[in-house]
Amino acid sequence: MFSFESDYTEGAHPLILDALVRTNFEQLSGYGFDKYCDSAKEKIKKACGCDDAQVFLIAGGTQTNQLVVDTVLQPYEGAISTTTGHIEGHEAGAVEFTGHKVLTVPHHLGKMDANDLKNLLETFYADDNHDHMVFPGMVYISHPTEYGTLYTLDELTALSDICRQYEIPLFMDGARLGYGLMSNGTDVTLKDIARLCDIFYIGGTKVGALCGEAVVFTHNNAPKHFFTSIKQHGALLAKGRLLGVQFDTLFTDDLYFKIAKNAIDKADRMRAAFKEKGYKIFIETVTNQIFIVLENEKMQELKKSVSFGFWEKYDDNHTVVRFASSWATTDDAVDKLIKLL
Amino acid sequence: MFSFESDYTEGAHPLILDALVRTNFEQLSGYGFDKYCDSAKEKIKKACGCDDAQVFLIAGGTQTNQLVVDTVLQPYEGAISTTTGHIEGHEAGAVEFTGHKVLTVPHHLGKMDANDLKNLLETFYADDNHDHMVFPGMVYISHPTEYGTLYTLDELTALSDICRQYEIPLFMDGARLGYGLMSNGTDVTLKDIARLCDIFYIGGTKVGALCGEAVVFTHNNAPKHFFTSIKQHGALLAKGRLLGVQFDTLFTDDLYFKIAKNAIDKADRMRAAFKEKGYKIFIETVTNQIFIVLENEKMQELKKSVSFGFWEKYDDNHTVVRFASSWATTDDAVDKLIKLL
Amino acid sequence: MFSFESDYTEGAHPLILDALVRTNFEQLSGYGFDKYCDSAKEKIKKACGCDDAQVFLIAGGTQTNQLVVDTVLQPYEGAISTTTGHIEGHEAGAVEFTGHKVLTVPHHLGKMDANDLKNLLETFYADDNHDHMVFPGMVYISHPTEYGTLYTLDELTALSDICRQYEIPLFMDGARLGYGLMSNGTDVTLKDIARLCDIFYIGGTKVGALCGEAVVFTHNNAPKHFFTSIKQHGALLAKGRLLGVQFDTLFTDDLYFKIAKNAIDKADRMRAAFKEKGYKIFIETVTNQIFIVLENEKMQELKKSVSFGFWEKYDDNHTVVRFASSWATTDDAVDKLIKLL
Amino acid sequence: MFSFESDYTEGAHPLILDALVRTNFEQLSGYGFDKYCDSAKEKIKKACGCDDAQVFLIAGGTQTNQLVVDTVLQPYEGAISTTTGHIEGHEAGAVEFTGHKVLTVPHHLGKMDANDLKNLLETFYADDNHDHMVFPGMVYISHPTEYGTLYTLDELTALSDICRQYEIPLFMDGARLGYGLMSNGTDVTLKDIARLCDIFYIGGTKVGALCGEAVVFTHNNAPKHFFTSIKQHGALLAKGRLLGVQFDTLFTDDLYFKIAKNAIDKADRMRAAFKEKGYKIFIETVTNQIFIVLENEKMQELKKSVSFGFWEKYDDNHTVVRFASSWATTDDAVDKLIKLL
Repeated sequence: MFSFESDYTEGAHPLILDALVRTNFEQLSGYGFDKYCDSAKEKIKKACGCDDAQVFLIAGGTQTNQLVVDTVLQPYEGAISTTTGHIEGHEAGAVEFTGHKVLTVPHHLGKMDANDLKNLLETFYADDNHDHMVFPGMVYISHPTEYGTLYTLDELTALSDICRQYEIPLFMDGARLGYGLMSNGTDVTLKDIARLCDIFYIGGTKVGALCGEAVVFTHNNAPKHFFTSIKQHGALLAKGRLLGVQFDTLFTDDLYFKIAKNAIDKADRMRAAFKEKGYKIFIETVTNQIFIVLENEKMQELKKSVSFGFWEKYDDNHTVVRFASSWATTDDAVDKLIKLL
Repeated sequence: MFSFESDYTEGAHPLILDALVRTNFEQLSGYGFDKYCDSAKEKIKKACGCDDAQVFLIAGGTQTNQLVVDTVLQPYEGAISTTTGHIEGHEAGAVEFTGHKVLTVPHHLGKMDANDLKNLLETFYADDNHDHMVFPGMVYISHPTEYGTLYTLDELTALSDICRQYEIPLFMDGARLGYGLMSNGTDVTLKDIARLCDIFYIGGTKVGALCGEAVVFTHNNAPKHFFTSIKQHGALLAKGRLLGVQFDTLFTDDLYFKIAKNAIDKADRMRAAFKEKGYKIFIETVTNQIFIVLENEKMQELKKSVSFGFWEKYDDNHTVVRFASSWATTDDAVDKLIKLL
Repeated sequence: MFSFESDYTEGAHPLILDALVRTNFEQLSGYGFDKYCDSAKEKIKKACGCDDAQVFLIAGGTQTNQLVVDTVLQPYEGAISTTTGHIEGHEAGAVEFTGHKVLTVPHHLGKMDANDLKNLLETFYADDNHDHMVFPGMVYISHPTEYGTLYTLDELTALSDICRQYEIPLFMDGARLGYGLMSNGTDVTLKDIARLCDIFYIGGTKVGALCGEAVVFTHNNAPKHFFTSIKQHGALLAKGRLLGVQFDTLFTDDLYFKIAKNAIDKADRMRAAFKEKGYKIFIETVTNQIFIVLENEKMQELKKSVSFGFWEKYDDNHTVVRFASSWATTDDAVDKLIKLL
Repeated sequence: MFSFESDYTEGAHPLILDALVRTNFEQLSGYGFDKYCDSAKEKIKKACGCDDAQVFLIAGGTQTNQLVVDTVLQPYEGAISTTTGHIEGHEAGAVEFTGHKVLTVPHHLGKMDANDLKNLLETFYADDNHDHMVFPGMVYISHPTEYGTLYTLDELTALSDICRQYEIPLFMDGARLGYGLMSNGTDVTLKDIARLCDIFYIGGTKVGALCGEAVVFTHNNAPKHFFTSIKQHGALLAKGRLLGVQFDTLFTDDLYFKIAKNAIDKADRMRAAFKEKGYKIFIETVTNQIFIVLENEKMQELKKSVSFGFWEKYDDNHTVVRFASSWATTDDAVDKLIKLL
């Protein structure tokens, strides 16, 4: 039995484990004050082309979203997200737990439309009663989105422009950022993101690390005493080296990009095979997630040999399922899958 | 330069790294639903002698304290702690962040006295106005304490008895539990703790793991939907295997206890050397932390060759410092230290 | 200039002020432990036909919603509301401030449809990932709704049935309850509400009181230590008599119902006049709020002589406005308005 | 039976009720946007000698403390209070509910000592680990204190100086401010308070109002969007006039000060009588609260004829009790009390 269920079914890229083993007995200061964290941060800043960025390494994605949204917002503000945004539906209310509302706009294949955003902001400020309402205080998007889709440079620029006009930060959840950057269907680079967003994170957990997300505040705009806020949110690791060593490895010799590229290559092969064999694509994606409409009988048959993810019911006889490739997916596994189709 | 600054200056015990490498390419489900988590939990339950215990693996100590205190308490309740309790002074208000007050009693070498606890509870319920006050809803203790001291079985039993009389849970922070259990000066076993406490955790971060604390609810008393609360608090790791593999290794062949014993052996050697050479002991401890009053000039001299922790000012000419051994401390390092004294 | 802007433009019904004056120098215990609070609660229980109800008097509506939602929900639960529910859009995030998400369903003229509710609950529990999501923990409806509409007995029963099936409480925001109960277009009585809801409140602020809402837990289901939670939320008045005397007066000789009836009579006259004169009704209501589509020029003209509320833009030449009658509206004022139409 | 239990046993000063009756049928805008609120605020600013003060009217004391502390602090900060401060012990954790810790210093007859404050701040910033701790973000004092004592001008100045040195605001809880200002034993004026504090409030509930506290931000330092925060905290009254009319009346012709003076005059008579008759004074006060050590038999005897407050057990045969006068206390009542002594 092999699995395309998600991009976090394996451990870490072997070079990361090597680095953990190699550095294991060095005695290092705790809480992220070690040379590997420092080095990782420098390399990330360089990759982003941001001299005045501030980088923080956090263990998990929901944790990062909660921490960033809560500390960047004023207490009377909420975060704008699409209805399909991860913070809106799939984080058990982690944002609301910190006292903030998620303000929603419709999604378009998982993406936020600049017109919807503009409309929300204009309507809010035009309402005489808006002092009785939650202030829109930041914009949350994910790239790739929860549907595996990507913003174009034009779309991202349009969102960024509106945010700057209204003086609210643009925050990008990059839990799968690597797969977005290495997609053959994107015109958005890491430097574009660093230029257009006020905060974003580079996902490690789903792109080759055991755990870890690198949050980038792109222009010295980290909230005051952010370190203390990390601790207060329960998000500070005593052995910060665990994150430092991993990100230092990922940003050495472009490892992060190379392993993300592997997932894209494998997904492209799988996508082509699905299409060639006449499978119905549910949402057209260009990243490592593929959404297929399966006839239920076919689904049951496939399930005997390969794991994949349930997405949603399509109709009484069909189901939407997800196949995800990852940094660890082998050509051999793709071959085996294609044979089953 | 070598360091006795803390017990989290190294990475992980080599057997843990071996296990991470060995299992790395197994495809496992996320969020803790994997066989290593299952196995670790079973082994921990067995070690505790608790068939009906529920075990959860959490990444960090402050995170665990925040999560347990918040979910175990009713919203109108607070946690009773000594003034030196970690949640009271050194977690950046992580407990209050979740809406709960820490109610304090004096400490006695870091420990809570049963009489102080009883007095707080009696005084609260005797006060006609107690409905205007925070209800004492649980007791938080650490073992070893922040001062490296240990409860005796009698002391722990007395606290447990009061908690049961008042029907409030007793929660033990065991961030350094291994060092407490393997101390030559303790009469408290893991099974005693499982019997006397309602919740406790077995610290991994400071006892050989890269990260991780194993929370034990000793009698099927985990709060309802605790999994969702973990997610809501931002504390759920996608790759739960990272914690599962580590604790499974630590609880195989008594590794946890053996490596904790190493720290105790080294600390006992160091303690004897300090005493023999006439150093003033600040607090008499029996675990892996040693608190010494150093003449300031001597402190500066030592600092050139070895790292240790600043604890507090003693007087104008003396300082209290902390030397901590760990699972990783070698006889060679102890020899080098003793030569310097 | 006279006003139909809202139902809280005047002070209190004169009988309430009389009672405050009459009882002013009696020395009474604080925090609601006085005979007027006791008497008010007994009268409310009787009016509701609920022997085992628990009644609490709270100063304001948003405060009541915040307090009830927060204390009734478990921390990992959210409240289901329509998108137009007051807690969702017009309370500055007071519910989220306490850590809970508002889960929305579409509205139908301001009302929640039982099928939408059922669908949300079924979908939630059918989703394999629902442990990563906010649990639906209660249902919030308003009656009259924010649009001045009313649930029929069948509609309310359907919602109640679903809540009982899923074992989640049904909470009714009755900020304008009197106007709903005295409407000529309702078949729902106070006793029906007390039977079908688990919690509801009887609005005082908008129905003749200076301030105050009477929360009814209909079957001894007030959260444990609710008094302390009131204090913790900052919602406890030292001079509880202020609320007790007011509600005792409102529930003596059916004053609450009589003065609500006045608002309905006046609104019915106004509604008839608007229709007769050919004004376009935006939403058909049967309570004290009337929504009219005005040509913008006419709106400007009317504004010179009478105040009313802006509701929303209709099109480039028309605006939706609201006229609200109240317990204090006189026939004279209605005559003057009709002359202006 | 008559009562000296507290200063909130009666309703409101008759002039306040008169004003509520007189203005009752005026149609006024809600939420504090009415002429009486405006007028009250202007009069308060004038009384404080603060042209650039911002005044907000809030219904209750705990509510005010919660609101001010939460909105003035940064999320990672706590409020410094004495161990006897109202927010620390008697508000059911209302401050912690909003996520903030109360940091305590010892009390001296209920007062905070400038040296203790300085020491807390110095120690905090001298601690290398203070980034792991709650930042001291404001100072909370009450005047009169919970023990009925008063700061001298020198003491208040010393606290203010330290706050300004550390750039943290000084907040004074003035729930009983009138009684402090009119005491014969004070050298602190309202203008001194407005000059030395950054925020304070003028208590109405305990000084002649039905409810209401007037918060003064003394130099345009109200938190941004404070109105929205009031709503978010559930503290916004729809009929803001209720507070406006009351404070407008209290600050017309010095009513607030005159009625506070009455309480002081009566308390001074009572204090003299207690002393003359040889009663033991527990704490020497100069405001409207008198703390007496009663022999238990005498206490039981007195209780038959007059109500007073239990404070605490003194020893097995004696009890500390509190007698409070108020704006409403008559000479007749004092005569009756003296006869009983």
